Amino acid sequence: MKQHTIVMLWAFILSASTGFSQASPTSIIEDFKPSTVNQPGQEYPKVNSQGYARFQILAPEAKSVVVSLGLGGAKGGTTLVKGEDGYWRGTTAGAMDEGFHYYHVTVDGGIFNDPGALNFYGSTRWESGIEIPAHDQDFYALKNVPHGNVQQILFPSKSTNTSRRAFVYTPPGYHKDKTKQYPVLYLQHGWGEDETAWSNQGRVNLIMDNLIAEGKIKPFLIVMTYGMTNEIKFGGLASFKIEPFQTVLVDELIPYIDSNFRTLANQANRAMAGLSMGGMETHSITLNKPEVFSHYALLSGGIYKPEEIKDKSKVKLVFVSCGSKERPEAVETSIKAMKDAGYNAVSYISENTAHEFLTWRRSFKELAPLLFK
Amino acid sequence: MKQHTIVMLWAFILSASTGFSQASPTSIIEDFKPSTVNQPGQEYPKVNSQGYARFQILAPEAKSVVVSLGLGGAKGGTTLVKGEDGYWRGTTAGAMDEGFHYYHVTVDGGIFNDPGALNFYGSTRWESGIEIPAHDQDFYALKNVPHGNVQQILFPSKSTNTSRRAFVYTPPGYHKDKTKQYPVLYLQHGWGEDETAWSNQGRVNLIMDNLIAEGKIKPFLIVMTYGMTNEIKFGGLASFKIEPFQTVLVDELIPYIDSNFRTLANQANRAMAGLSMGGMETHSITLNKPEVFSHYALLSGGIYKPEEIKDKSKVKLVFVSCGSKERPEAVETSIKAMKDAGYNAVSYISENTAHEFLTWRRSFKELAPLLFK
Repeated sequence: MKQHTIVMLWAFILSASTGFSQASPTSIIEDFKPSTVNQPGQEYPKVNSQGYARFQILAPEAKSVVVSLGLGGAKGGTTLVKGEDGYWRGTTAGAMDEGFHYYHVTVDGGIFNDPGALNFYGSTRWESGIEIPAHDQDFYALKNVPHGNVQQILFPSKSTNTSRRAFVYTPPGYHKDKTKQYPVLYLQHGWGEDETAWSNQGRVNLIMDNLIAEGKIKPFLIVMTYGMTNEIKFGGLASFKIEPFQTVLVDELIPYIDSNFRTLANQANRAMAGLSMGGMETHSITLNKPEVFSHYALLSGGIYKPEEIKDKSKVKLVFVSCGSKERPEAVETSIKAMKDAGYNAVSYISENTAHEFLTWRRSFKELAPLLFK
Repeated sequence: MKQHTIVMLWAFILSASTGFSQASPTSIIEDFKPSTVNQPGQEYPKVNSQGYARFQILAPEAKSVVVSLGLGGAKGGTTLVKGEDGYWRGTTAGAMDEGFHYYHVTVDGGIFNDPGALNFYGSTRWESGIEIPAHDQDFYALKNVPHGNVQQILFPSKSTNTSRRAFVYTPPGYHKDKTKQYPVLYLQHGWGEDETAWSNQGRVNLIMDNLIAEGKIKPFLIVMTYGMTNEIKFGGLASFKIEPFQTVLVDELIPYIDSNFRTLANQANRAMAGLSMGGMETHSITLNKPEVFSHYALLSGGIYKPEEIKDKSKVKLVFVSCGSKERPEAVETSIKAMKDAGYNAVSYISENTAHEFLTWRRSFKELAPLLFK
């Protein structure tokens, strides 16, 4: 396919130089394929090798259909045009950022999902999702390697008076070797997302499977749970307090995991990481509970300052990352200060990505080999 | 709440007898609550204690909004009426059947999902879902009891040249007692559904947790995988052949499960069951492979005849069920014939339900205690 793309690009350059194709639509390479996160059997939405997305939505009697995705990811939108067959069609005005994007469709003023796409929980609703193939997508691809499991658990939570859901990634071989014990990473989603995000949008289980198959990491468990409690209303973070979730995580979930899974149940073998709001949570909880976690990671979710940390000897790793389209200088400055203060501190900047999941997939891939060394 | 309902019914009868409330809308009891399978924080769709459903969809510029659900479950539809605030509203013309229903919304001729409801895979698409509280809903409720896990596995399938997904229910305690081995039920979804159906729509993990907590069953594993292979096109069953799926199930999935989970890996401790199309598959595969399964169950998915079975000594249980609104006489006739022929045969008819998930939840609850005795 790369070969094909190069040939077509070359053909475009030639034709452009002869003035054959001056109109802007001809610059779009017609190698569109269904997005890899479409519903089964659905042709649309489609993406091409340049990163354009094309939509097709049936709504014969509608007055207007607008897709929330436009140029460069989440910004802007794409207004579709109705065909005589009742389908609304349109293509983004330019190439979108590589990776996963949330979107929705506004039909006559109402917000719906694209019937062609799978849904993912983001922005406190199940949104449509689309994948723009990334040049480095191999690291999160489903491959013919041994696969770990993603286990849904329901753990009792006295503090919130309910059974709460979490997902636990157990590496390949977990069920076979009945004595081996594993370190554990507690991994949090972002605002408006939930405990499904890291495996559905983040593909973290596939990234782990691939890293393990390549011998690049020491296998560990990953625990992903919902990072909000009842006091947080949907729609805002203004009243956010860390204590209720900290209680769920530290006093309820960790003991349940240590009792029901084969863990190395100590501070040295326990890490916490989170993206965006999950980074805020990680920052607060790791600082509040230095006796619980030894490895800390913030993915597009703030920074650490040396003066925030009470007992330097307890911190084995500080990892801070973001996309190059976010604020990489803040990440670099923070990590330099942490290094200068003598911490094992690592920064990572994801090239050409913003506050979206490709940043966090890549960040996770960089983080995983550094954990529990 | 029951108290409240009775009071309101009584008030209605009184007012009706005085001629105060003759218009039909007054017969609807105004105790609507959000459906239990709404998206987080969403008020609509709502259901009342009589089984009416009420919808509210924002689409200010639309010409028409119709919900596919009407009286008695999937039949008919409900046309919504636009309010001045741009929301379309409407209530079903009568009480719907108890239990879970799929539905969607037609907006100006296009099919979308209700933004208020969670989605469930049915009819080869992710559909909106709604729960009409059933009088016996307690058996599938999330309770404060020990919970089993639902594990997503990806198993290698040579015959279809991919990694296929399945879900494995492991009972509470599976992770703690590291030596105990369990019988296994292979449980199939219906046409247009997939391997997510039995836990999402069927709540089979919660039914198991509750039956185990009550000491009513011997714990077993449940394996749920996708029952279609590539040769089946979306939209029809005309070209259905059992062999490709039988190969996946018997030659690929079962060995993987027996190798990766603590199973009693023999015919006596292996059951197969399925709903609707999954019943057809169960019927074919159990008859083709008597050396693999000993317990057979068809849930709204056909019947067995004594003359179909090659070796009677290998069959430990035949269970056949359906809803009373399906064809219960066929089920009863079949089971009578099986009993007359000397089989351990059991029928079950779910009262006042059709070809829908409450029939199958109830059928499963009746089946589970009969397995592996």
